[in-house]
Amino acid sequence: MSQFKKDFSKLTTTKDGQLLLEKAAHDQVETVWERFEAQQPHCGFCEMGLSCRICAMGPCRIDPFGEGPSRGACGADADIIVARNLGRMVAAGAAAHSDHGRDLVEVLAKVAQGKAPGYKIGSPEKLRTLAGVYGLEIEGKSDTELAADLAHAMEEEYGTRQERLTMVNRAPDPRLELWEKLGVMPRGVDRETSEMMHRTHMGVDNDWVRLCLHGVRNALSDGWGGSLIATEVSDILFGVPKPTKSQVNLGVLKEDQVNIIVHGHNPVVSETITLAASDPDLLALAEQKGAKGINLVGLCCTGNELLMRHGIPMAGNHLMSELTLVTGAVEMMIVDYQCIMPSLGSVATCYHTKMISTSDKAGFPQMEHREFHPEIALDLARELVKEAVENYELRNPDKVYLPVEPVEMYGGFSVEAILEALGGTPTPLIEAIKAGKIRGAVGVVGCNNPKIKHDLGHVELTKRLIENDILVLDTGCAAVANAKAGLKLPEAAELAGPGLKEICQALGIPPVLHVGSCVDNSRILVLAGALADALGVDISALPLAGAAPEWYSEKAVSIGVYFVASGVYTVLGVMPPITGSMNVVGLLTKGLDDVIGATFDVEPDPDKAALLIRAHIEKKRKELGLDAREVK
Amino acid sequence: MSQFKKDFSKLTTTKDGQLLLEKAAHDQVETVWERFEAQQPHCGFCEMGLSCRICAMGPCRIDPFGEGPSRGACGADADIIVARNLGRMVAAGAAAHSDHGRDLVEVLAKVAQGKAPGYKIGSPEKLRTLAGVYGLEIEGKSDTELAADLAHAMEEEYGTRQERLTMVNRAPDPRLELWEKLGVMPRGVDRETSEMMHRTHMGVDNDWVRLCLHGVRNALSDGWGGSLIATEVSDILFGVPKPTKSQVNLGVLKEDQVNIIVHGHNPVVSETITLAASDPDLLALAEQKGAKGINLVGLCCTGNELLMRHGIPMAGNHLMSELTLVTGAVEMMIVDYQCIMPSLGSVATCYHTKMISTSDKAGFPQMEHREFHPEIALDLARELVKEAVENYELRNPDKVYLPVEPVEMYGGFSVEAILEALGGTPTPLIEAIKAGKIRGAVGVVGCNNPKIKHDLGHVELTKRLIENDILVLDTGCAAVANAKAGLKLPEAAELAGPGLKEICQALGIPPVLHVGSCVDNSRILVLAGALADALGVDISALPLAGAAPEWYSEKAVSIGVYFVASGVYTVLGVMPPITGSMNVVGLLTKGLDDVIGATFDVEPDPDKAALLIRAHIEKKRKELGLDAREVK
Repeated sequence: MSQFKKDFSKLTTTKDGQLLLEKAAHDQVETVWERFEAQQPHCGFCEMGLSCRICAMGPCRIDPFGEGPSRGACGADADIIVARNLGRMVAAGAAAHSDHGRDLVEVLAKVAQGKAPGYKIGSPEKLRTLAGVYGLEIEGKSDTELAADLAHAMEEEYGTRQERLTMVNRAPDPRLELWEKLGVMPRGVDRETSEMMHRTHMGVDNDWVRLCLHGVRNALSDGWGGSLIATEVSDILFGVPKPTKSQVNLGVLKEDQVNIIVHGHNPVVSETITLAASDPDLLALAEQKGAKGINLVGLCCTGNELLMRHGIPMAGNHLMSELTLVTGAVEMMIVDYQCIMPSLGSVATCYHTKMISTSDKAGFPQMEHREFHPEIALDLARELVKEAVENYELRNPDKVYLPVEPVEMYGGFSVEAILEALGGTPTPLIEAIKAGKIRGAVGVVGCNNPKIKHDLGHVELTKRLIENDILVLDTGCAAVANAKAGLKLPEAAELAGPGLKEICQALGIPPVLHVGSCVDNSRILVLAGALADALGVDISALPLAGAAPEWYSEKAVSIGVYFVASGVYTVLGVMPPITGSMNVVGLLTKGLDDVIGATFDVEPDPDKAALLIRAHIEKKRKELGLDAREVK
Repeated sequence: MSQFKKDFSKLTTTKDGQLLLEKAAHDQVETVWERFEAQQPHCGFCEMGLSCRICAMGPCRIDPFGEGPSRGACGADADIIVARNLGRMVAAGAAAHSDHGRDLVEVLAKVAQGKAPGYKIGSPEKLRTLAGVYGLEIEGKSDTELAADLAHAMEEEYGTRQERLTMVNRAPDPRLELWEKLGVMPRGVDRETSEMMHRTHMGVDNDWVRLCLHGVRNALSDGWGGSLIATEVSDILFGVPKPTKSQVNLGVLKEDQVNIIVHGHNPVVSETITLAASDPDLLALAEQKGAKGINLVGLCCTGNELLMRHGIPMAGNHLMSELTLVTGAVEMMIVDYQCIMPSLGSVATCYHTKMISTSDKAGFPQMEHREFHPEIALDLARELVKEAVENYELRNPDKVYLPVEPVEMYGGFSVEAILEALGGTPTPLIEAIKAGKIRGAVGVVGCNNPKIKHDLGHVELTKRLIENDILVLDTGCAAVANAKAGLKLPEAAELAGPGLKEICQALGIPPVLHVGSCVDNSRILVLAGALADALGVDISALPLAGAAPEWYSEKAVSIGVYFVASGVYTVLGVMPPITGSMNVVGLLTKGLDDVIGATFDVEPDPDKAALLIRAHIEKKRKELGLDAREVK
């Protein structure tokens, strides 16, 4: 552990982040920013996507200046190497989301078999809606019978027999026809990932355009497949989110309560912890130990899942995960999987915090592994909460630092909730768009990344958009950032342009709608599809855009690709490792427009990114015959 | 194209290789060796597995000398980074083999539907055997009905509903129990690959031991899953290999015939080319064009598939693929996928050779893409052969160079053929092993790699083994190397030790048995399982070993892992990119022994590798209570 001294206001825009970074330096706790700095300068070959480790004739590198090798040992050039490396990022991202979806389908199947005592069908309505999507016989079936049938049908999506995922049929017809024509219709969720790994093996797909197109197929198997399954089955099991009040930032931790943080992505574990945290016996035990209660808070996307459905408060996003522990006020952190820094166990050793890993597919250094399975989940959740409560006694008050007050916010804007707020149909939203009061809508999504000042990318972009009458839907770390900035309160309508402000005030909603976790980007797809269908056009014709201002993960790569593949222009704030191939860059930022009706842009400056997005939205408005503003 | 001047006898042990490298230099054709040299020195971080590109907070690097960062931005240390990188190699290898298997299952399904006119059930017996493995109702079913049922059952292996692959049940019971106990029983072929991609995403599996164990599961889903399916369905469609005479090396190309090379791995395309190449109309056309016939030859593993089943001659292995074109005598090269250097199209531009790619998942620079589908395969095969014949006129005799005579060889040693040679049961082989005439058996498998002098690793190791009464089974590039060295003739028994020589002469077989292509390493597993069952022990108790002296591909990584996971000690000739973690190295070379009953070793020197293998075999003999020799 070194002393990391910096002007912390340059690293994060957040007050809690800055203050806790000071404390981390004082406590000699190493954070991601320090490790990030130690990694400078980054390897230029890796950064440009020009190094290849795909076979043992290498590793090989292409010289971007043309003075060294232009081909690897096998003969692959920069285009092939960059496309292969990018393809594997998509594969990993799609696999992560989709494996998360699989875990939920397995719980659904176990609920149907009566083998998952901590779980139930939380939304019989949504179960029936989904059964309809899959064309299942519904009449006369009990919820559990239907759950069994639906789980079986969804398992087929992960198989290899279908020529098209059933879930994909929810996309608008023109989009389906386009995907069919391009040969990018996803067949099986796992199949597309496996095929990507096959294609990127030495001596298989050495056509970089073809590889990029398979990236599209692979990402679509995530967005309209694995992720959508994850979202829908979570709703079936745990309920469809509705607008709910909550709080956000490190101030949600309580000095006088047992603080338990759930971190990760899959609600399967955190939902049972939520149940256990309100167990009267455990609350009584907490009181015995001198605590005023058990305070369950979320972190990252498993936090978003709980926030969306139960209003559980949110401690922070990706770059805050280490700093939550530095508060010294956390009795236990329970993690499932994805985006859990392997440094967390080490940070916790400086405090009394117990670190618990729960997934059979994710272990971490210096954490205790207590594996969750649906059969035993509730009992294990109770055990863990009990241990957290008992750990309260070991908290050292001298080490506790909770210097900020939480910010109020609203979450819970599922597609169902948005439609309900609109009176049951998308028509009022469409009318507002047609009338120009709302210029369009943008999904601001993705992670944090120390390459971008923490939360700056999300919040500044979002402000610029709402100021210009653009409705923002956000998910994941972006949603947490915007919530911390106070943008998820109806009062934030004051920050919006006059048209958007009017609509928000009429509906009593914030100008920035929290749509959920990373897998819930699928909700944005479904909403975009519904708008396109209502207007009788393809998604690519709509005044929509996506943005991932601070992305860092391979899942974000998959999300970006399925947004663009669905016809949504998307601006990234961080450059992917593709600059070694101007051909790949050209395809993604220009060429794809002719192919798929949307492209990527990369722009780290949020003000400039807002201009790009606004110009795109006004262009789409014009093409639809709506009034269009000049953007400059 | 540069002038690449070298002592070519230092690059390859083969006469044809050396002479064609001279011609390549003369023709200013760049080869893999030249590109390999231009890549020196390799990046040490990548070579040691210490660079991480798994997320966009990086790229990160761990300093192996401890003077720079010991963790990536996320906090991952060397063990985690190395294990993740290795895990993705396994995933890609398993995916490649298994996707190949899937393609065959799809053809089987199409044959059943009458939609694959160029294909038929080549072995109704094997179809019925496999239907038995899957517990299908056989009685009263036609071949096509059974084919439909079997294809459907095999598709389920690629799905997500099973807790265990059905095919895996062919492994000996003690092994199955061990895999179950360790939690490495493969569930679905694609699922394990997807889960590996998920686990290696940032913030998922950061327990390097757990990651390595999932590598075992992923590789087992290949060896006892996807690869075994590929082998068995190929046998069902195209016939079970029987000992067949053939020829090998560049001398199989004919100066006075139309030479067509099939290159890649999947027999689905090359089998139809074989049919078309004997079409009387096309043979007549060849005669019209002044050619004495149509000479179809194979390269790499699609060549091995044809060699095993039809005795089609073999032009060479991996490092010879460019040089086959340098002969100037090839009218057409038709490729499917895997191990096809993307340089080949460029090499062909120096000659008249037409380059044809055929798979929807593999395109290549400077090749014409003519996509094969089972429905149209035979027609397309005829078209292509016709075009090859027509291209004969464009051959420039001044550029033709065929300086060597082919070597005779025998291939075709499927498990069925080996058992038939033994009189129907493994007993004579077991008796010979018990009596010490045969000390044990070794699978010599894998690729070529410019890091090892071409074919030296395979041939020298094989010679040392047979000299010491160890039976060698080989596949892939190793099998081609040993064939070129004359080791696949019954007369090669003279090079064997007295015990092995006696057995070979009694049975009329060579001391080195050609078992097939890379996916046919599954045949070695099945044979090992049969021997273990016959002796009532686990595979790890047998005097067996594996070797991959010149491996280069990710498929070889998967093969190595499933060999070891099946209980077969395996010696690699090329170091995998894992030396950045002494923990991972220690687990693979020592620690696994207690876990799974076998380990890896790495030894580039074939004489030393032979000593390691002999010592292992004698140790296993001793443990079985058989006589054991001292090895030094």
